[in-house]
Amino acid sequence: MAQQSPQQLWGGRFGDAEGRTNECLAKLNCSLPLDSRFYAEDIDGSIAYAEALARAELITVKEATDIGVALEVVRREWQDGTIKFLPTDEDVHTVNERRLIELIGDVGKRLHTGRSRNDQVVTDMKLWLRRGIRETIAGLRAVIVAAVEQASNNLGALMPGYTHLQRAQPVQFSHWMLSHTFALQADCQRLLELKERANLLPLGSGALAGNPLGVDRQWLAKRLGFAGVTPNSMYAVGDRDFVVDFIYCCSLASLHLSRLAEDLIIYATKEFDFIKIADAFSTGSSLMPQKRNPDSLELVRGISGSICSSLSGIMMTIKGTPSTYNKDLQFDKQFAFDAFDRLQDALTVVEGVIKTMELNRESMEMALSPDMLATDWAYYLVRKGVPFRQAHHYIGEVVAYAENLGRELNEISLEDLQKICKHFDVDIVEVVDYAANVEKYDVPGGTATQAIKEQLKTLQAYLQELNNL
Amino acid sequence: MAQQSPQQLWGGRFGDAEGRTNECLAKLNCSLPLDSRFYAEDIDGSIAYAEALARAELITVKEATDIGVALEVVRREWQDGTIKFLPTDEDVHTVNERRLIELIGDVGKRLHTGRSRNDQVVTDMKLWLRRGIRETIAGLRAVIVAAVEQASNNLGALMPGYTHLQRAQPVQFSHWMLSHTFALQADCQRLLELKERANLLPLGSGALAGNPLGVDRQWLAKRLGFAGVTPNSMYAVGDRDFVVDFIYCCSLASLHLSRLAEDLIIYATKEFDFIKIADAFSTGSSLMPQKRNPDSLELVRGISGSICSSLSGIMMTIKGTPSTYNKDLQFDKQFAFDAFDRLQDALTVVEGVIKTMELNRESMEMALSPDMLATDWAYYLVRKGVPFRQAHHYIGEVVAYAENLGRELNEISLEDLQKICKHFDVDIVEVVDYAANVEKYDVPGGTATQAIKEQLKTLQAYLQELNNL
Amino acid sequence: MAQQSPQQLWGGRFGDAEGRTNECLAKLNCSLPLDSRFYAEDIDGSIAYAEALARAELITVKEATDIGVALEVVRREWQDGTIKFLPTDEDVHTVNERRLIELIGDVGKRLHTGRSRNDQVVTDMKLWLRRGIRETIAGLRAVIVAAVEQASNNLGALMPGYTHLQRAQPVQFSHWMLSHTFALQADCQRLLELKERANLLPLGSGALAGNPLGVDRQWLAKRLGFAGVTPNSMYAVGDRDFVVDFIYCCSLASLHLSRLAEDLIIYATKEFDFIKIADAFSTGSSLMPQKRNPDSLELVRGISGSICSSLSGIMMTIKGTPSTYNKDLQFDKQFAFDAFDRLQDALTVVEGVIKTMELNRESMEMALSPDMLATDWAYYLVRKGVPFRQAHHYIGEVVAYAENLGRELNEISLEDLQKICKHFDVDIVEVVDYAANVEKYDVPGGTATQAIKEQLKTLQAYLQELNNL
Amino acid sequence: MAQQSPQQLWGGRFGDAEGRTNECLAKLNCSLPLDSRFYAEDIDGSIAYAEALARAELITVKEATDIGVALEVVRREWQDGTIKFLPTDEDVHTVNERRLIELIGDVGKRLHTGRSRNDQVVTDMKLWLRRGIRETIAGLRAVIVAAVEQASNNLGALMPGYTHLQRAQPVQFSHWMLSHTFALQADCQRLLELKERANLLPLGSGALAGNPLGVDRQWLAKRLGFAGVTPNSMYAVGDRDFVVDFIYCCSLASLHLSRLAEDLIIYATKEFDFIKIADAFSTGSSLMPQKRNPDSLELVRGISGSICSSLSGIMMTIKGTPSTYNKDLQFDKQFAFDAFDRLQDALTVVEGVIKTMELNRESMEMALSPDMLATDWAYYLVRKGVPFRQAHHYIGEVVAYAENLGRELNEISLEDLQKICKHFDVDIVEVVDYAANVEKYDVPGGTATQAIKEQLKTLQAYLQELNNL
Repeated sequence: MAQQSPQQLWGGRFGDAEGRTNECLAKLNCSLPLDSRFYAEDIDGSIAYAEALARAELITVKEATDIGVALEVVRREWQDGTIKFLPTDEDVHTVNERRLIELIGDVGKRLHTGRSRNDQVVTDMKLWLRRGIRETIAGLRAVIVAAVEQASNNLGALMPGYTHLQRAQPVQFSHWMLSHTFALQADCQRLLELKERANLLPLGSGALAGNPLGVDRQWLAKRLGFAGVTPNSMYAVGDRDFVVDFIYCCSLASLHLSRLAEDLIIYATKEFDFIKIADAFSTGSSLMPQKRNPDSLELVRGISGSICSSLSGIMMTIKGTPSTYNKDLQFDKQFAFDAFDRLQDALTVVEGVIKTMELNRESMEMALSPDMLATDWAYYLVRKGVPFRQAHHYIGEVVAYAENLGRELNEISLEDLQKICKHFDVDIVEVVDYAANVEKYDVPGGTATQAIKEQLKTLQAYLQELNNL
Repeated sequence: MAQQSPQQLWGGRFGDAEGRTNECLAKLNCSLPLDSRFYAEDIDGSIAYAEALARAELITVKEATDIGVALEVVRREWQDGTIKFLPTDEDVHTVNERRLIELIGDVGKRLHTGRSRNDQVVTDMKLWLRRGIRETIAGLRAVIVAAVEQASNNLGALMPGYTHLQRAQPVQFSHWMLSHTFALQADCQRLLELKERANLLPLGSGALAGNPLGVDRQWLAKRLGFAGVTPNSMYAVGDRDFVVDFIYCCSLASLHLSRLAEDLIIYATKEFDFIKIADAFSTGSSLMPQKRNPDSLELVRGISGSICSSLSGIMMTIKGTPSTYNKDLQFDKQFAFDAFDRLQDALTVVEGVIKTMELNRESMEMALSPDMLATDWAYYLVRKGVPFRQAHHYIGEVVAYAENLGRELNEISLEDLQKICKHFDVDIVEVVDYAANVEKYDVPGGTATQAIKEQLKTLQAYLQELNNL
Repeated sequence: MAQQSPQQLWGGRFGDAEGRTNECLAKLNCSLPLDSRFYAEDIDGSIAYAEALARAELITVKEATDIGVALEVVRREWQDGTIKFLPTDEDVHTVNERRLIELIGDVGKRLHTGRSRNDQVVTDMKLWLRRGIRETIAGLRAVIVAAVEQASNNLGALMPGYTHLQRAQPVQFSHWMLSHTFALQADCQRLLELKERANLLPLGSGALAGNPLGVDRQWLAKRLGFAGVTPNSMYAVGDRDFVVDFIYCCSLASLHLSRLAEDLIIYATKEFDFIKIADAFSTGSSLMPQKRNPDSLELVRGISGSICSSLSGIMMTIKGTPSTYNKDLQFDKQFAFDAFDRLQDALTVVEGVIKTMELNRESMEMALSPDMLATDWAYYLVRKGVPFRQAHHYIGEVVAYAENLGRELNEISLEDLQKICKHFDVDIVEVVDYAANVEKYDVPGGTATQAIKEQLKTLQAYLQELNNL
Repeated sequence: MAQQSPQQLWGGRFGDAEGRTNECLAKLNCSLPLDSRFYAEDIDGSIAYAEALARAELITVKEATDIGVALEVVRREWQDGTIKFLPTDEDVHTVNERRLIELIGDVGKRLHTGRSRNDQVVTDMKLWLRRGIRETIAGLRAVIVAAVEQASNNLGALMPGYTHLQRAQPVQFSHWMLSHTFALQADCQRLLELKERANLLPLGSGALAGNPLGVDRQWLAKRLGFAGVTPNSMYAVGDRDFVVDFIYCCSLASLHLSRLAEDLIIYATKEFDFIKIADAFSTGSSLMPQKRNPDSLELVRGISGSICSSLSGIMMTIKGTPSTYNKDLQFDKQFAFDAFDRLQDALTVVEGVIKTMELNRESMEMALSPDMLATDWAYYLVRKGVPFRQAHHYIGEVVAYAENLGRELNEISLEDLQKICKHFDVDIVEVVDYAANVEKYDVPGGTATQAIKEQLKTLQAYLQELNNL
């Protein structure tokens, strides 16, 4: 049986004989290993709350000051790693309040007036969320920066663009590289929207019914940087949607990284040989001396399963629980921190991989083949007046004809072409230059150099915007 | 083997002998039962695209007009249910293009110039999304309206507020009812943010490389009501994040309904007996004649598992796929439509249940017990100058003392109270009126009548805002 | 409002004025579109139950016979598609009982004596499960057969074996092909174990308390082919684990297919070019005439997300529900049938792809490179007495040395080799024959021809065993 | 940059300048915090492998003995907590091999001959699985024991049986208690089947191609307690199905606990008041002194979301990976250990709760009401010859009649009853004794005392069986 000291916040009623908490429950119940992560936010909230108590004349200004000073001492103990835990410390709130009382005695016992751990923990978590969002955006930003740099440095490098993993049309490497950044940009946007949406202060909701002591919630909100207060106290203490939202944003970002990783893993095969992953991001084999494995990217691809499992986990945990606070909600922290940490890892690795990978432009260009211009051949016929659907069909026949002969598209004689469609003419030879064709895709978002430069500009402006946040 | 007619959009190259598609694949590949749902959006997009082709002088204005007129004929066939499918119709795009060609011949074959089904389908899906969002918000709104009405009509009705499903503090029924609406309000907000975020036109991205024929994407965007164009064509054709986002919003909303359903199921037990679910939303038993089961709410609770599974399903499907378009993405529609339909069902049921349920105010008030005022007793001591943590402890002792005697809190003599804490006095009798205590919780978001009226005002303003969208 | 006729099984108590069920709830509540799938099992169970009632002398033998005869009429109506539904038909049980009563009047009203839909539906579902398992195993078996045939026909074809998608060691194509079949074999085993484990009859559990009328459950079990009866009636009516188990088996099988599909998609790229997917399992592009896309395999890969979502869906739905029957459980059927149907589709497609794909043995062998023998070079040194870890290190140096020179492993002079390790000798040239090296991996499960033949034998024996079930 | 020492198992080829592994990747790549959990299994496998090498004459018997002795030293270091890690230790395999070499020099370098970490880690994991299964079954068994004891001690205690959380029929508390144990019994069975199914040795599969050095896998299998060897080396190194199976078993068990927890949470409300959770498994409130919250059970209910998320996580991670080994598979350990640990926690808590909870038999019996006998009233009419469906309808009318009068079923006069159905007679009064009615449900699995005693016998026999494993 775990000891239950007077310091346990709710000990009063549970007698000596029967009052000891089961050891395993105590362990399971104890959220300290997790919530110590936001000790600073807990202290920030408590200092502000003490000030609010003083403003409501529930304590004196002197008492509020004493509490504030003492809590800063506690903060330093955390920072210095000198804070000590007792077996009865259930969570970070208990630790901070206990230390406060140890430091300044009875005055400390006034801090919790009108506050419940129910509104306290959700306030702490919302304060932590700001940090979680900020750091996640920083990680995403770093990957975008690395990709933008690779794209800028390699303008003009051609490669096959794939759909269904089959060669489709020639594109620029930079175009492909940037295609991944826009997904990450949207991830940033989602996080910024969440930051706004969640920015309402729960403190002052008490256990569930609100606060009956005249604490000024609007003042508290302003004091702690919130845009307003949560609109209903029963809702506030049982709401973890901002945590689910955050994990969702992380999950979606991890999916984006998994697709990028998949591309890179395939491009790094001997068969494609488009890129070389730096040794710093490769590992070897304990059996096969020649191996260089893209472990880094496989971990990134795999980690998405882990991050998304935090999402399905928290949703399942919340499903069907009664409203307001239930202990099931305690798992929110594990899910959120896991998702955050793993995404940080993945972002760091991906940033490093992109920064250090080397392009094999020769292989990329050698992978271009005349049949990839089939669409452009169809457009050739379109320009001669053939309806596109018809043109598509003619070129389909040309491709089949070439395949049967074991030849490339550009090795078919004009005569043979004209047998299939009379609109073919000598100028068809102009449609065989990959680079020239690529430059025709100059629509916004296209693969022409000018269009890519526009994309770079857009991204750089966005990076600047993120910087200014 | 399924037939492969010339109408198959990509038939040209696949010869006769070997070109027939496997029957099961044809079935699996065929998305018609699903995507026929956005036939109208497909037609809208095609008419606009024809106009864009005319503007780029790839077809004549006359041809564009002919295409537009013919597509309106096709639209009417869908509306009237007279549209006919061929075995070779793979999807709604094929049907519409085939009918177009059947109606106006070669001109119809020009429509697909520079367009791919890759950018076409994602455009259609984005157009459908608008409708999906609008109708989901309407459903959410209807539930909020019903709840606001119940809350307005029952101001003053007291009930126990629960945390951990244990009686915690007295609250108003209306406070509890509204606590659920704020979660739904946030769902609306998420959907509206998604609507903005996703409102970029993919059309003009081609298969993956963009459009080389001078189609004006910005004009097309404006024509179809988009705020801009997608920034990168390879990203555009492989991006289904807006679908994932939508399913996520539906999933979270379904969790909110599951918690509301759980509350109501419990409140409708004989043991709580707070509410009576209308017969229209109850069902009986084939064996037990006396049963009235809240099937409606159990279905709502259970349906959240189904909706959330669409989310985990689409995320798993996308995970690790190469970038740009892969056929795996075709499942987006099934997931999205399932989530949408099921949420609609759940919202309709919940709206009906709330509208028609009857309160048993007597049972609710009888469930209040003096120990639920323990917190207010502690505040009593706080007002006498006892630090809260100390007061909490004293009241804990009083509760234990009362429990041991088998008495209620208010049945302990002042003398006995003073043995536990000398600050107890005769005015403690004032802290036993539930209604009076509830009115003290008058902080914003609290359970006092005034605070609830504020909440109602906030919600009514929001409902008005939604109306004006 | 949906009509509520006397035929509704539980209508008696719900009065006229208020008794009509809400339309949307009626739709949602109605499981007929799903459970009509096991109309035959429902009839089987009812006929047996009528006989059990007769044995318990609750009805006469004549009545039981009349019920049996009438239910066979109903069965034929289902088979012929002439069965008619009424708006009040909630489920397949209602339809069958209603038709029975329509056919033979009051006698039919005796059938439900002591039975509840709670034990009836779980019995029906268990009977359906047998069919579900049998057909799933048949589908898995067909894929194994196709793979065994491809493996048998291509013994001796070499290809690179990959780990981390990097060339690792030469293996036989047949070895790779069979590696996938063993996963499917284990899927069959899981299903067969489930069949045994679940084979306990729930009928006779009533609504939840059991049967008080002396119905002989053991006799019923034997009559319906069960190995025994469920041990506790409250458990029996609320237990859907056999459905979860089934969906789990389907999900795991779908993961196996997703990995096979991923391999094949990659092997079918132009860059690998190991296999050609038959045209019957490829599709083209609406824009790019040259494309041949492995849509079939992408659908298989993607479908795993859908099937696994049924698993996470049913688990989430069940989580936290009170024990015995709750309406939430109704979703079991949707999840089970979806998983079953989609897996059938995927299995059919994979079987077809394997059967019809063509190997490009030339490309496969050209993909072998001397560095893939690095491990064998290390074994060469081991045989000369060098500890393996040391040998691995030496060969690592050789690989690096060769890489720096831009040469293959076998192009390093003996002199240079000996600078790295003195144990290299002229016989190192013997370690460069891929086929000979492959034959050395002759341990059970290895890639040598003899070892593969053993695997084929094992599989053929298992296929035979499945046939005999 | 993390250091890369010669001890890194694959360092040979990666040069000095570029060879250092990125720090974050090193951290992410490092599985030591997880896989050190099976250091003992790794050592067991290595000792056996050394013996196998000696049997194949790849090392001498003396060398094998030296390796064995040294590895036992390493084992003791782990046991004593004196083992030291280097920054280059990637995993438990590296640690053990490094220490081995440090202890006995070059001989240690021979241990890895023909072995790869690919077949080594999957062997270790399978060895760990045995322990995981054994301990999970022990945990399940302990809960069953506690439940059986509660059921035995409380035979005869009546309570309402619920379906849809509505009072359905009277049952015995013991019947309800045991209904949960049968789900847990099936969990044990699933685990035991898995133990058999997975019991094939992967060692000897090398990196993917098998073993070319004549190592006797069958001997190794026997030596390590396996029933046989894995049939295909490429399958063996990439197969984690036994891990997925294990997590699935844990997930399903956690669902069972979540339903039990839900029942208990509801039964422990003031409104039901059927049980009192011991103080050791309750916690208080920081704000409300009177609260006693069933946190223990809420954690159990919530933890199922966490455990099931390990399942969805590993399935998503595996989905779509190429065959054989990919680094994505490394996450299997995190998922498996998380699921195992959390289930252990939940089982310990549930065992404790059941053992220590107190029944409030009075409340339970007071919750029985005459309408719960409606089914038995219907059976009364059935015995008078009324067809059940008709009888059900008559009783439905009686219930409605009573409800309208605000009376209980047994307060309706015989005269009034006969107006509804003439078959009612004076002996109807016999159908009002709850206990007597319960005893009629004496079918196997029913709620009669005799039937429950049979269930207890079955369970006790099973517990004995588990003991003998």
